[in-house]
Amino acid sequence: MIGLTLTALPDIPLIEPGDDLARIVYHAAKRAGITFLDDDVLVVTSKVVSKAEGRRVSLAEIEPGDEAQRLAAVTRKDARMVELVLRESSEVSRAAPNVLVVRHRLGFVSANAGIDQSNVTGDEETALLLPLDPDASATRIRAGLQELSGAQVGVVLSDSHGRPFRMGNVGAAIGVAGIPALRDLRGSRDLFGRTLRITIQGYADMIASAAGLVSGEGAEGLPVIHIRGLVARGEGKASDLNRPAEQDLYRSR
Amino acid sequence: MIGLTLTALPDIPLIEPGDDLARIVYHAAKRAGITFLDDDVLVVTSKVVSKAEGRRVSLAEIEPGDEAQRLAAVTRKDARMVELVLRESSEVSRAAPNVLVVRHRLGFVSANAGIDQSNVTGDEETALLLPLDPDASATRIRAGLQELSGAQVGVVLSDSHGRPFRMGNVGAAIGVAGIPALRDLRGSRDLFGRTLRITIQGYADMIASAAGLVSGEGAEGLPVIHIRGLVARGEGKASDLNRPAEQDLYRSR
Repeated sequence: MIGLTLTALPDIPLIEPGDDLARIVYHAAKRAGITFLDDDVLVVTSKVVSKAEGRRVSLAEIEPGDEAQRLAAVTRKDARMVELVLRESSEVSRAAPNVLVVRHRLGFVSANAGIDQSNVTGDEETALLLPLDPDASATRIRAGLQELSGAQVGVVLSDSHGRPFRMGNVGAAIGVAGIPALRDLRGSRDLFGRTLRITIQGYADMIASAAGLVSGEGAEGLPVIHIRGLVARGEGKASDLNRPAEQDLYRSR
Repeated sequence: MIGLTLTALPDIPLIEPGDDLARIVYHAAKRAGITFLDDDVLVVTSKVVSKAEGRRVSLAEIEPGDEAQRLAAVTRKDARMVELVLRESSEVSRAAPNVLVVRHRLGFVSANAGIDQSNVTGDEETALLLPLDPDASATRIRAGLQELSGAQVGVVLSDSHGRPFRMGNVGAAIGVAGIPALRDLRGSRDLFGRTLRITIQGYADMIASAAGLVSGEGAEGLPVIHIRGLVARGEGKASDLNRPAEQDLYRSR
């Protein structure tokens, strides 16, 4: 039968800077009795990748500039956090009380540039930035897993994004390796041979959402989800999912 | 181990007006060796629900009004289709060549009001509208499945939506029964007891995306996905997922 199995890898330890995530994921899977096969996909929350890559910043060392101070007053946020958001962004999309939506330097639109203050060891005065180059991080993890297991797996670095028009956060792929980010179904024909209305899937985002259903409970510490049953191979990159502003059909003006 | 299993129910027949979907789903699952348990979730593509509910319209019977004719010229679409889109919508969000984005009468924003010309039996001159009241449809399917199986299952009616900012369609829940549409994680604490940054999940949409990974290939005719492993019960409705325009933090102005 056609289907998917998603499994949260148990007992992933707290991740520290310099940790080898591929090795940690490989051994967690092994302990759980999972042997990687070609086309398996591992979804890793970007947070543990950030930790492994040493992307934690001490707020005490951040000197907010004029723009950060101005936006901190508008948004009622910590000016040092706002300074970090600005450094991680290419433009401010929306600033209002408790709201700071930006276009991230990686090209997607998100709240607070994906910078996180929760789930980080140490004192309260730190922030965790997204990985510098999440596609490269995914590619490294993929290469490490291939070396350890011999299998050609796909890797998605996931984050959780709010969205226009709809309530609630959903999964977003911010790094991709070994699978397509978008899946083009335009070649497909429906049961009557007509071209399908739904032509392109946000495939890696859908994978991130599926994994988020399992890892969604932060208290349980489930940062890595193993998926078996996906079939599409490819060399996608997360930026394939960024819609160029001039093609944004959903903005009314 | 914590995880999910998604299975496409095989051999779902072509759906005709008046078909009893609960009975069809129940028997397809039975043939596949699946016995429903409490908390199982069935994701049914809205298209087969529309077919069962007789939501097919013959375009020959549609008389486009002035507004439809004007928008048909702008969008280069069939004026009869545009007329149907207008009848199914509360406002036009964006009209441009090949683009007609509206707020559906059900409250969400989508292209062409979710009206479909593919995968419908009969001649080319028909359109398939979304179900009249998809939450009620989901509730009926849920009740039917409970009667047949004795299990308290959840039901999601799924569609596929484009979105602002990001390329590719993803799953959207347009009808919900027996599960929450949004999942509030605000009570959760992270590993260090701090409140989580990600507070509310677009739970039913994430379920629709997960199922869409399996059913995404129209040529294969996989309109019903069985999911085991989800834990959240509740009485959500699809409109919980519609973000009121005045709360839309992602629109810049």
